[in-house]
Amino acid sequence: MVASLENHQRHQVVIVGGGFGGLYTAKALAKADVDVTLIDKRNFHLFQPLLYQVATGTLSPGDISSPLRAVLSKSKNTKVLLGEVNDINPETQQVIMGDETVPYDTLVIATGANHSYFGNDSWKDLAPGLKTVEDAIEMRRRIFSAFEAAEKETDPEKRRALLTFVIVGGGPTGVELSGAIAELAYKTLQEDFRNIDTSETKILLLQGGDRILPFLAPELSKAAAESLGKLGVAVHTQTRVTNIENDIVTFKQGDEIQEVTSKTILWAAGIQASGIGKILAERTGAECDRAGRVIVEQNLSIKGHKNIFVVGDLAHFSHQNDQPLPGVAPVAIQEGEYVAKLIQKRLQRKTMPAFKYNNHGNLAMIGQNSAVVDLGSIQLTGFFAWIFWLLIHIYFLIEFDNKLLVMIQWAWNYLTRKRGSRLITGKESLELAKAMTHQPTLDTTVKV
Amino acid sequence: MVASLENHQRHQVVIVGGGFGGLYTAKALAKADVDVTLIDKRNFHLFQPLLYQVATGTLSPGDISSPLRAVLSKSKNTKVLLGEVNDINPETQQVIMGDETVPYDTLVIATGANHSYFGNDSWKDLAPGLKTVEDAIEMRRRIFSAFEAAEKETDPEKRRALLTFVIVGGGPTGVELSGAIAELAYKTLQEDFRNIDTSETKILLLQGGDRILPFLAPELSKAAAESLGKLGVAVHTQTRVTNIENDIVTFKQGDEIQEVTSKTILWAAGIQASGIGKILAERTGAECDRAGRVIVEQNLSIKGHKNIFVVGDLAHFSHQNDQPLPGVAPVAIQEGEYVAKLIQKRLQRKTMPAFKYNNHGNLAMIGQNSAVVDLGSIQLTGFFAWIFWLLIHIYFLIEFDNKLLVMIQWAWNYLTRKRGSRLITGKESLELAKAMTHQPTLDTTVKV
Repeated sequence: MVASLENHQRHQVVIVGGGFGGLYTAKALAKADVDVTLIDKRNFHLFQPLLYQVATGTLSPGDISSPLRAVLSKSKNTKVLLGEVNDINPETQQVIMGDETVPYDTLVIATGANHSYFGNDSWKDLAPGLKTVEDAIEMRRRIFSAFEAAEKETDPEKRRALLTFVIVGGGPTGVELSGAIAELAYKTLQEDFRNIDTSETKILLLQGGDRILPFLAPELSKAAAESLGKLGVAVHTQTRVTNIENDIVTFKQGDEIQEVTSKTILWAAGIQASGIGKILAERTGAECDRAGRVIVEQNLSIKGHKNIFVVGDLAHFSHQNDQPLPGVAPVAIQEGEYVAKLIQKRLQRKTMPAFKYNNHGNLAMIGQNSAVVDLGSIQLTGFFAWIFWLLIHIYFLIEFDNKLLVMIQWAWNYLTRKRGSRLITGKESLELAKAMTHQPTLDTTVKV
Repeated sequence: MVASLENHQRHQVVIVGGGFGGLYTAKALAKADVDVTLIDKRNFHLFQPLLYQVATGTLSPGDISSPLRAVLSKSKNTKVLLGEVNDINPETQQVIMGDETVPYDTLVIATGANHSYFGNDSWKDLAPGLKTVEDAIEMRRRIFSAFEAAEKETDPEKRRALLTFVIVGGGPTGVELSGAIAELAYKTLQEDFRNIDTSETKILLLQGGDRILPFLAPELSKAAAESLGKLGVAVHTQTRVTNIENDIVTFKQGDEIQEVTSKTILWAAGIQASGIGKILAERTGAECDRAGRVIVEQNLSIKGHKNIFVVGDLAHFSHQNDQPLPGVAPVAIQEGEYVAKLIQKRLQRKTMPAFKYNNHGNLAMIGQNSAVVDLGSIQLTGFFAWIFWLLIHIYFLIEFDNKLLVMIQWAWNYLTRKRGSRLITGKESLELAKAMTHQPTLDTTVKV
């Protein structure tokens, strides 16, 4: 059942990926005289900027997910297809999903990117990343299982390893994760245990570059690092992980090589574009950068294929300055909306100027009542930045799905330091209790 | 590290199970001059009466779960142990968890019960039950995957099977599940699909007895059945499932044998007490009923073991009338609070009258704005019953964990028919898209 047959006379737009880039392309085409087919592997859009809150037990997956069909149910020209795209045929203008093909007149690829282990893919299981709901639940399981195991652990050395958290990567995710874990350890969980003092927890944030949150103004990076330090996070810059093995993270800081034993190593570094980028390049001769992102023209199309666009984290757009645009939601949203507009202009035989990213500012949450906001002209830190951060996220979170109460609840939990969603769930977790009771040792308690 | 060594002079109460029975026993002992150790396999208490709402995408697991440590953090005499009890030794007065032992002066067993497949355990995977968070997420995955698969299915027969839901068991869970699925199919999802009309969905509720919700007054069972009928649920009473195989449910209604093909069969029938009941019986000579529930004395202790108590779904208490008390939260709560009081009285060399269940009433949700409430003297149906149901659940849900906003949000979503949490997640779900795209056939799309 091919998506377009019913109205083959209309222009067929196929969008691959229901993240910010793809979803906002579809939303912006809701009233256009085209048929839209949105293809995604999952049945929901994930509000990734808050995923770390699921990983640290403040929000539930449902709080930051919106069913794609519900978001687009009013867009009568739009179809949602649940499926995985394996290939693209620019000649026949078809997207291939297994034994199924979906023809397009215009194709928009928005399949995003993942973390990069810089070629050390064996680290993936030892230091999981945070991109999917499943990732977040697994991270949550590891974080809270570590405290549970520490509570039962009698060997001081093993207990220390269980109460040591290493976060690799000083971007927003790494900063927000380490800040949230600091609040868990030093505030939320303070009264919950009887055998351990969670304030003995050690949290290390390892950043390769010379400062965290490098996309911010230097003074804000400095402010963020100071706030993290106050929270109890040890920030190590110019630090590269050289090995992860047997719960030991080896890292090189300058010329000095250090080791730390930790049962909970979390990965928030690097960029690896999704595999479709490579396929697209092979089929179209488009160029990819080292991270696998597809290098796009000034109008976000691919060289030589004016009807194929790439938006969001998968796109490498460096026409504004030498640096590619960062992989953040506002970029993806503006790119998606630009392409939607361009498609309609073309149908009206009109042209459009090159895409220009309008940076309204950057922001990152650090911890309770503390964030950094860089609006270029205005720069905020501390509580007001936190309120600003909160309002921005409420705005986007409720835009296409009324999650206002979710955010109020979250803000309330956050201020009252509640962690209502700190569940240890999933198949592995069912083994946890057994593992902990049979041999409450380092190796079996927390399955890292 | 044995839980009690630190204060061996104080009376040691060990509670196994953090459900309603165990948790309320612990809460009622918070200020008592005893040491309490609560042992559970999971790190959270689950508000099971609302679990069907997770299974049908209205609430998230975190909304109805409370971390045991957080609930009991203020009870300084109480320890939470994450672990699985394998055995009990009444002679040495020890609970055995793997290679670890926890000594007790008084033992309270509250490990609950599960569904029973009446000896047909092969049905378990074909027709999953609803007891754990994982069960609910799996049910949610199956329900919403069925609609997704139907949207892509071209074979009308297969599509019909995908849009047919069979719920086995006419107790509260079965009634609430079928009502919620009816609302999904006939209301919530109406606008979300393009190829299927979800109003073609068929929902069958199969009940062995001669009426649904048998614990209610007959006229209320009748009212509930009528409301379900109005919602679009086909209620079959005096109907026993004789076989489940290849997506075909065979059931006997009276003498008539019928078959229905369904991709989503959900189980909410029977009672099978948790395994510890059997162990307890072997070790103490206590008697169990056919469901494996431990038959308790008038003070909820076990015959010949006055310091071992059984409360909640695992207990068979039939002193009030011939029927054992039903496996509902109010019974477990009252039993737990009774035992907590009895323990304190004993320490004061005082006695207590036999346990008496004070039935404040029974209630069940049927669907939007509709429930049945049986207060004995007063009986409510329809909207007022629904409001009453909501208030009761808010009251209990917020009692030990401030989830008021959750319930407001839920009520709002419910009235506006939103299903914000209808995520298809979990390991299996990651295969769904692939399965659906490669061979969009009945067998692979939904992994039943």
